[in-house]
Amino acid sequence: MSEKIKVGILGYGNLGRGAELAISEQPDMELVAIFSRRGPVETVGKNVKSLHIDDATDYVDKIDVMILCGGSATDLPEQTPAFARLFNTVDSYDTHALIPEYFESVDKVSQASGKLNIISVGWDPGLFAINRVMSEAVLYKGKTYTFWGKGLSQGHSDAVRRVEGVKAGVQYTLPSDEAMDEVRSGENPDISKSDGHKRECYVVLEEDADPKVVEKTIKTMPNYFDEYDTTVHFITEEELERDHNKMPHGGFVIHSGQTGTENNNQIIEYSLKLDSNPEFTASVLVAYARAAHRLSKEGQKGAKTVYDIGPGYIHPKSPAELRKGYL
Amino acid sequence: MSEKIKVGILGYGNLGRGAELAISEQPDMELVAIFSRRGPVETVGKNVKSLHIDDATDYVDKIDVMILCGGSATDLPEQTPAFARLFNTVDSYDTHALIPEYFESVDKVSQASGKLNIISVGWDPGLFAINRVMSEAVLYKGKTYTFWGKGLSQGHSDAVRRVEGVKAGVQYTLPSDEAMDEVRSGENPDISKSDGHKRECYVVLEEDADPKVVEKTIKTMPNYFDEYDTTVHFITEEELERDHNKMPHGGFVIHSGQTGTENNNQIIEYSLKLDSNPEFTASVLVAYARAAHRLSKEGQKGAKTVYDIGPGYIHPKSPAELRKGYL
Repeated sequence: MSEKIKVGILGYGNLGRGAELAISEQPDMELVAIFSRRGPVETVGKNVKSLHIDDATDYVDKIDVMILCGGSATDLPEQTPAFARLFNTVDSYDTHALIPEYFESVDKVSQASGKLNIISVGWDPGLFAINRVMSEAVLYKGKTYTFWGKGLSQGHSDAVRRVEGVKAGVQYTLPSDEAMDEVRSGENPDISKSDGHKRECYVVLEEDADPKVVEKTIKTMPNYFDEYDTTVHFITEEELERDHNKMPHGGFVIHSGQTGTENNNQIIEYSLKLDSNPEFTASVLVAYARAAHRLSKEGQKGAKTVYDIGPGYIHPKSPAELRKGYL
Repeated sequence: MSEKIKVGILGYGNLGRGAELAISEQPDMELVAIFSRRGPVETVGKNVKSLHIDDATDYVDKIDVMILCGGSATDLPEQTPAFARLFNTVDSYDTHALIPEYFESVDKVSQASGKLNIISVGWDPGLFAINRVMSEAVLYKGKTYTFWGKGLSQGHSDAVRRVEGVKAGVQYTLPSDEAMDEVRSGENPDISKSDGHKRECYVVLEEDADPKVVEKTIKTMPNYFDEYDTTVHFITEEELERDHNKMPHGGFVIHSGQTGTENNNQIIEYSLKLDSNPEFTASVLVAYARAAHRLSKEGQKGAKTVYDIGPGYIHPKSPAELRKGYL
């Protein structure tokens, strides 16, 4: 039995907690410590070491990979280049438009430090991105569609809650079944984001509120709802707490391609149905932490993305075991 | 514009023809020649060079990657080690149980020759195998299911045609919707191959045949049909020719995992719906031919599988372009 991979977690919100739980399921990893700006935090597991972020520098020789669980807006652009000097890392940077410059800023550091740093890991970017690229590579003549949901949208839930007469509420984005069926038929239609998605709101009313007025205000809200097929359900506070307390998400990547002289339809579809978005994203990060450690041990360095990494590197078994049992 | 990748095809059945067509769709490849044991063959495209297999040795310096399109039973175990001495190759070896020894026999040759040889490429083994390994790596606590179909089964079609009173016919294997829904619910059921699949036969009767007798003979045929939910449709010869002249296939890899203290269900699903099985498999081979060429140019050598290869290597665009446009 080879030595376990020593993992650290930096940042302890929903994603950090998910990473803690995912590491505990792995046969070949041990969690060394959790680091937070808040100092020691209350962890899910017992006997988990929790320290202030400033103590991380003492762990350079005790941690093989640091999982960076901060946010993309302000944490990661600062933390990843700083920690890539000291540690192999994985992160979930997801500001799509800024990924190229983020990659450069991390790569510059890790080329000098000799560390291996995998950026933008998760499901989108991440697993969805892999499927978009592989499908297009295999069926070059074709079109790729991404649908999101069923997923809880924070921004749209906030918008619903700002409506007068709304006491509490949540909003889910759902893919349109009709649009997906059209794509699956191989017709390669043009589909706008609003044609491809529906919105569902679950709303608790203030006592004196008029449901008709609230429903109309939501459905006609510009930018948020007016262009979408929107449904508003009125529920009680108890129902909201009981049925809408999770953070589900998911989606579909569908590639419709054509091959041969007869233009045969070939459909590749990848989908996720997640009861907990942060726990799943954290699970992807933890699997890629394994890859960061293995690639670093092979002598590789620099910033990497999921595109650079062979699928076998994220699985605990060896290449020979995978060839025997999974190919 | 960089130089195009020079590709050869060895073997010219359905798979070889599919490879010829797939190469013609690629922006960065050119087909140098097709080699066949039969000598020059009639190709789909015009102006395609077609030669006897013995002429391949003259093309060692003119071909970057040779796509081996022979069968797994007898062609590839002999051809791949022989041609790995001379060329980078990709092949679709799919005798699952013998893959480890096949890998060793190829790797031994290519470690000495310095060539890069990717084995067992296609969709199963291949894309399905990638999804099994990645899903299990991400959701280690969980279970992976594979369903095949709707697909034309050659062996079962032959069995149907041997029944007395059957003039012609085909058999399709289909996944059971009930079994798939059970899996998607996150219950992690045990499902046998016969519980998970149904069989559908389309049969043209001889003039004097009794449909009741034929149907019963098919449905009770041991090993082939007796354990399955089997449906028999009687059709005319014209309908058979019009509606059943393609080679469709496909299937589903569904991984049902659980995360966190609340055992949240997380479902990953990958599926293929293929109007032409050989054209799709050939398209996967052609994409991995690109990876073989790139890895060889990087100085790598030896036998590889899809597990070793980063997804970006199979796409014509550069890593920087992929990070910008697809992540």
